Amino acid sequence: MKASEDRPEQDCADLVMSVEGRAWAFCFLPLHTSIWKMLLAAMCLALLGCLQAQELKGHVSIILLGATGDLAKKYLWQGLFQLYLDEAGKGHSFSFHGAALTAPQQGQKLMDKALESLSCPKDLVPSRCDELKGQFLQLSQYRQLKTVEDYQTLNKDIETQVQQDGLWEAGRIFYFSVPPFAYADIARNINSSCRPHPGAWLRVVFEKPFGHDHLSAQQLASELGSFFQEEEMYRVDHYLGKQAVAQILPFRDQNRKALDGLWNRHHVERVEIILKETIDAEGRASFYEEYGVIRDTLQNHLTEILTLVAMELPLNISSSAAVLQHKLQAFQALRGLQKSSAILGQYQAYSGQVRRELQKPDGFQSLTPTFAGVLVHIDNLRWEGVPFILMSGKALDERVGYVRIVFKNRAYCTQSERHWVPEQSRCLPQQIIFYIGHGELGHPAILVSRNLFKPSLPTQSWEEVQDQPGLHLFGRPLSDYYAYRPVREQDAYSTLLSHIFHCRKESFITTENLLASWVFWTPLLDSLAFEVPRPYPGGAENGQLLDFEFSGGQLTFSQQQLEVLIPDLVSVPKPSDFQVLGAQYRQSPLITAWPEELISKLASDIEAAAVQAVRLFGKFHLALSGGSSPIALFQQLATGHYSFPWAHTHLWLVDERCVPLSDPDSNFQGLQAHLLQHVRVPYYNIHPMPVHLHQRLCAEEDQGAQTYASEISALVANSSFDLVLLGMGTDGHTASLFPQSPTGLDGDQLVVLTESPFRPHQRMSLSLPLINRAKKVAVLVMGRTKREITTLVSRVGHEPKKWPISGVVPLSGQLIWYMDYEAFLG
Amino acid sequence: MKASEDRPEQDCADLVMSVEGRAWAFCFLPLHTSIWKMLLAAMCLALLGCLQAQELKGHVSIILLGATGDLAKKYLWQGLFQLYLDEAGKGHSFSFHGAALTAPQQGQKLMDKALESLSCPKDLVPSRCDELKGQFLQLSQYRQLKTVEDYQTLNKDIETQVQQDGLWEAGRIFYFSVPPFAYADIARNINSSCRPHPGAWLRVVFEKPFGHDHLSAQQLASELGSFFQEEEMYRVDHYLGKQAVAQILPFRDQNRKALDGLWNRHHVERVEIILKETIDAEGRASFYEEYGVIRDTLQNHLTEILTLVAMELPLNISSSAAVLQHKLQAFQALRGLQKSSAILGQYQAYSGQVRRELQKPDGFQSLTPTFAGVLVHIDNLRWEGVPFILMSGKALDERVGYVRIVFKNRAYCTQSERHWVPEQSRCLPQQIIFYIGHGELGHPAILVSRNLFKPSLPTQSWEEVQDQPGLHLFGRPLSDYYAYRPVREQDAYSTLLSHIFHCRKESFITTENLLASWVFWTPLLDSLAFEVPRPYPGGAENGQLLDFEFSGGQLTFSQQQLEVLIPDLVSVPKPSDFQVLGAQYRQSPLITAWPEELISKLASDIEAAAVQAVRLFGKFHLALSGGSSPIALFQQLATGHYSFPWAHTHLWLVDERCVPLSDPDSNFQGLQAHLLQHVRVPYYNIHPMPVHLHQRLCAEEDQGAQTYASEISALVANSSFDLVLLGMGTDGHTASLFPQSPTGLDGDQLVVLTESPFRPHQRMSLSLPLINRAKKVAVLVMGRTKREITTLVSRVGHEPKKWPISGVVPLSGQLIWYMDYEAFLG
Repeated sequence: MKASEDRPEQDCADLVMSVEGRAWAFCFLPLHTSIWKMLLAAMCLALLGCLQAQELKGHVSIILLGATGDLAKKYLWQGLFQLYLDEAGKGHSFSFHGAALTAPQQGQKLMDKALESLSCPKDLVPSRCDELKGQFLQLSQYRQLKTVEDYQTLNKDIETQVQQDGLWEAGRIFYFSVPPFAYADIARNINSSCRPHPGAWLRVVFEKPFGHDHLSAQQLASELGSFFQEEEMYRVDHYLGKQAVAQILPFRDQNRKALDGLWNRHHVERVEIILKETIDAEGRASFYEEYGVIRDTLQNHLTEILTLVAMELPLNISSSAAVLQHKLQAFQALRGLQKSSAILGQYQAYSGQVRRELQKPDGFQSLTPTFAGVLVHIDNLRWEGVPFILMSGKALDERVGYVRIVFKNRAYCTQSERHWVPEQSRCLPQQIIFYIGHGELGHPAILVSRNLFKPSLPTQSWEEVQDQPGLHLFGRPLSDYYAYRPVREQDAYSTLLSHIFHCRKESFITTENLLASWVFWTPLLDSLAFEVPRPYPGGAENGQLLDFEFSGGQLTFSQQQLEVLIPDLVSVPKPSDFQVLGAQYRQSPLITAWPEELISKLASDIEAAAVQAVRLFGKFHLALSGGSSPIALFQQLATGHYSFPWAHTHLWLVDERCVPLSDPDSNFQGLQAHLLQHVRVPYYNIHPMPVHLHQRLCAEEDQGAQTYASEISALVANSSFDLVLLGMGTDGHTASLFPQSPTGLDGDQLVVLTESPFRPHQRMSLSLPLINRAKKVAVLVMGRTKREITTLVSRVGHEPKKWPISGVVPLSGQLIWYMDYEAFLG
Repeated sequence: MKASEDRPEQDCADLVMSVEGRAWAFCFLPLHTSIWKMLLAAMCLALLGCLQAQELKGHVSIILLGATGDLAKKYLWQGLFQLYLDEAGKGHSFSFHGAALTAPQQGQKLMDKALESLSCPKDLVPSRCDELKGQFLQLSQYRQLKTVEDYQTLNKDIETQVQQDGLWEAGRIFYFSVPPFAYADIARNINSSCRPHPGAWLRVVFEKPFGHDHLSAQQLASELGSFFQEEEMYRVDHYLGKQAVAQILPFRDQNRKALDGLWNRHHVERVEIILKETIDAEGRASFYEEYGVIRDTLQNHLTEILTLVAMELPLNISSSAAVLQHKLQAFQALRGLQKSSAILGQYQAYSGQVRRELQKPDGFQSLTPTFAGVLVHIDNLRWEGVPFILMSGKALDERVGYVRIVFKNRAYCTQSERHWVPEQSRCLPQQIIFYIGHGELGHPAILVSRNLFKPSLPTQSWEEVQDQPGLHLFGRPLSDYYAYRPVREQDAYSTLLSHIFHCRKESFITTENLLASWVFWTPLLDSLAFEVPRPYPGGAENGQLLDFEFSGGQLTFSQQQLEVLIPDLVSVPKPSDFQVLGAQYRQSPLITAWPEELISKLASDIEAAAVQAVRLFGKFHLALSGGSSPIALFQQLATGHYSFPWAHTHLWLVDERCVPLSDPDSNFQGLQAHLLQHVRVPYYNIHPMPVHLHQRLCAEEDQGAQTYASEISALVANSSFDLVLLGMGTDGHTASLFPQSPTGLDGDQLVVLTESPFRPHQRMSLSLPLINRAKKVAVLVMGRTKREITTLVSRVGHEPKKWPISGVVPLSGQLIWYMDYEAFLG
């Protein structure tokens, strides 16, 4: 049991219990007059923000802003009508206000038109449907909301109506179905002129986009936050209202026993979160060009689904607070995305559409992706190593959305394949699919392979799907699955409007949740800003062009690009176009190449040295520098070198900053994160510098440098490291030996405390005499910024006081320079 | 390049180059007389052991011991005939001696019968075949070999013949096709009476079984080693002669480029090494009952194949020495097998067959397995985590043998499944199969999925297989594979006899190789000695009964056992039949259960404590004891607890032996092997006891105990650990606080040096006062041996000097006892 789940939750009902204990207690005093009851109920409600609305009835006003827009016409009016059908007669009274900027008469006309097409559920007889529709229309009226006065009038009208009808007001819902630029004005007006009296609740509902990146989302959130409380705001991600998505947590909850041992890296092979569309962005280019596929669907819909699948399951999944908390924990565990985590595509007609719709010049080529695949990893013990594949795109070959959890095949079936039985054979695929809709099945569904387990689903809302012979889904006939579909298909907006009404905040995006998602996506979006997406023809013609695969955290298209449409941007030479060059620098061998090849060569050389040392002496003493250049080396060593004798390797530090080892600035920390976590070096072969003895940092009296020196003398034969990896600073420093500072350049000391011109100033470093005793010294120099010092140092003699790097002259060992082209050629 | 491959190799040809450089040089002096040439050639050969025999021709005598036995009749004579067909006319002359104990006349008859059925390759015209067969029969004669004199006569006869014919002797091959008990006598006789003159080589060939376990194999090997040099001995594993198996290394070598990135844990999902037979052991029960399936096929055939797949590929695969060296490295990396690594079966008719053939009493039930599945893991960076599944059995539903390498699906195919193209789609299965023979294909083959790569194979010996529409192999139609079969199918023995003749030692089992295999298998065989195999009906009726699956290193049958045939042996209650019991012990809560449940409960309790501590204080300080009981706990924590906050956990030691941390006796070593390698605790949160300062062990003047005490004081608030895990010794000791030793029982010292009555005597330990400051103390007591002390300690009061464990009384924390039933109930 997770202790954190015992905490009082910041949830609708619980809020009062903890924060406002007295009021709550008061609420439940036995009361006998209805006025008292109403008044108290109102007070409670105000304190709660909301409460299971069934308890305390009253009048609810719902104001749909943007009442004549597309979304309203397509979904929202229907959703409100459904809400009315579901809730009318249960004690509440309703009024619906369609609002827009249009003048009253014309607006009313537009709205009437939108309301014409309202439909009733199939199980309602037509006459009853007409009757209810009539009632709904009567309760709905258009209203122009433009000026402050309009809002004041609205407010007064609601109050008057409530009074006239002898009602009390339960609350108001404002649904913002308007572009984000209009949010602030409307929000200000609602806040200043349209808040219900203190006894009633206010709920404001927003539609995405919620910003464009982390900063803009933060700005928007803080702007809205100046008008509304967090508990008043409902950010809609309508995918959370889709029935198959809404069922993910309940499914995990109701099948805890079966899933308990399965829902983890030991059993899950991969998770696919997929949203394929056939339509393209035609007619919406002005929106789409600004957002692109990642902002349009991945940052929100697919990410929300990801967290529902990946989060630790709260004990009580109906606690919004617990769900949110666990969601945020899942966000924290997401491994940061690299540019190489994503592949991008753009259907070929897109740029033309943008040119037409946005009046761009003829030659204009958009870089906005309309297709993206992203590989997400989650760095916790449950999911480490399991690929989460997020994919979404327009102009693809079919319209379908699903979440597919594929389990590892951990069985061997002794009997020959011909005799396998789908219900029993553990060698057939095992998967769980939340089928969001469309596709070959044509409706939402939950599929569980029969050889996995028989799932438990709420029978009143989910029923078994009839087999459709010939229908194959995810490689298997439908009959291989326990397959369920909703008893009654419901539109996402109907579901969400009901949730808003019933204060089920777990179906909405809180500010924390929103910002966590942007924190995750923004760096990727930034790094991809100038990436040229792969062009694709659209539809079935895409063929295998958009198939992709992953390896070591990177995503690549499976097929080589067939043609390059924008040659200028991609004709930059690739690393593999070049050979590793061998030459001389300061009378020592120089190896120069593009970064990838250089690192690869250095890693191989280190491995060769390690193998040789272990063969000859049984161990390999390697001293490593910190900084950013070696990180790629560490990663290369960690993932590509299967024969590296880590068990016999001793790791030493060349230098260290005087910070605790756990400090992000610590050189050791980089070594730990990028190398040690991935290979098996025995604990006692790891030798961090003792910069933090007796809870002090590099105190002279703690004799850390002397301690390290004696450790070296004791373990490293002749204090001669097998290999020392150095870098070179733009000031010519190496290790932590800085120009114009006398320490460590000569003398007997093996390890010294030094002063850096940069923060943190205090350092510990191997001394030059110790470095020069090494059997091999490799100096790694990378990046354009090193160009100048590289040229300079190539010309200077032995002047360690001015250029400490020039003092690196191994006594009898070998010195090799590893420089990338940018450092060497500029 | 691996430096180790640069070493002079102990190979046929290379031996002389390095060890006998002068002789080799001498061999190649230009020589002009044929006698000189012969003499020198003979000298060279003697020094070499063997050499590419084409170079230097001479007479070869092949003595087949057991010439009238089954193996000889079925394979060996045919193999010798094939050798004759291949080699005659290339300069060598031959004589073949069929030998047995039978008297000459009867023996010759039996042998003639065996030779009747010799057949020629299909491409040879019948007349030529008859001619060659006639020649072969003329060169072959029967010979009784029983007494020392018989061997002396043989020796003399060979020498005489060689002289008469004006030949020189190249060498002698003795093929031991006799039961192992006869080896020693024959070997002695050969060694004493039948060695060729010093210029010619001797090769002795042995057939398995090579022992019964490690000890017997060692004895047999050292016995044979007293008669023969290692390079004279050829141990046959005839699977190494099967064409598909013999092609594994060449395939890996010739497809290095394609396989380089694939042949590792990142890409391989699993490896299956399978040998299914339909026949049972009828008629061979006396052999089989002693050996069983693991000794019969897994220890030898399947293990050899395993090493061919798993070993690092030598640069030069035709170097026997390099191959052997890499094979031995692969053996070293094999993770030790547990009892739970295997599942066993026995076909139902087996015990009856044993009763009949071995005259066993009616009630006799054999425990010998006729079916086994074994899960092997290889603990190196290339293969870590990849399951190698070895399976073999008799009376199964089909006869087939194969090695199947299944690759991970690392692709997402954007296009819908209907449009996938087998050659291109990376979403279809990707596999490489070495098809040893039989099965639905009916012949040896090498299959490579077309979506993987087009393999390179030697065209003179392998040709593409014609498609057979309707034939599915491993889930896919044959047309999905690049499929190759041998141009000419060849029996394994023919291949091996040729390899013996050509001195290709890499196809044979060296002594080191053999013993490495037994070292690997013997512990499993021991642990399974009394295991009851699952009964199975045999053939297709086995259904899903023998399907098995793996999880966390364990193998289990997929189906529950349907009926228990031998109820007495398996009716022992299982852990899950019991509940965890809660009670009191020494006035503190006692939790008692079967070991599995107990460990599981303790692990959960520790996790709960950790989660709570991290929530409240941001970190969790856990002090752990060493010894064997906690190992199961460490494993449980490492594999089953996904939410454990390792990143915020500090690990301390309760006590430590004064040995280096890397010593197998070190408590820290157990913690590292079983816990730290599997979870991500930051380096600086790990606090081993400083028992090894300044390269000395627990020297008073190094103040290790004080150092540890100050580390605790500095990091652990109030020096109060969140949880201390203790054990209890049979003498009532806990931590390293021993009876009758005053240190650490009271006073101010937090950490103390103590003396143990057991080796190593010197210890470092937390003191009782420090332990008693902990918030929680858990004492884990397991096993029957603890029964007495458990009873005793339940009755004593506070007598820490006599029973240190009785001094564990947390000041304000909680003490909980965890005891398994054996410790608690005896």
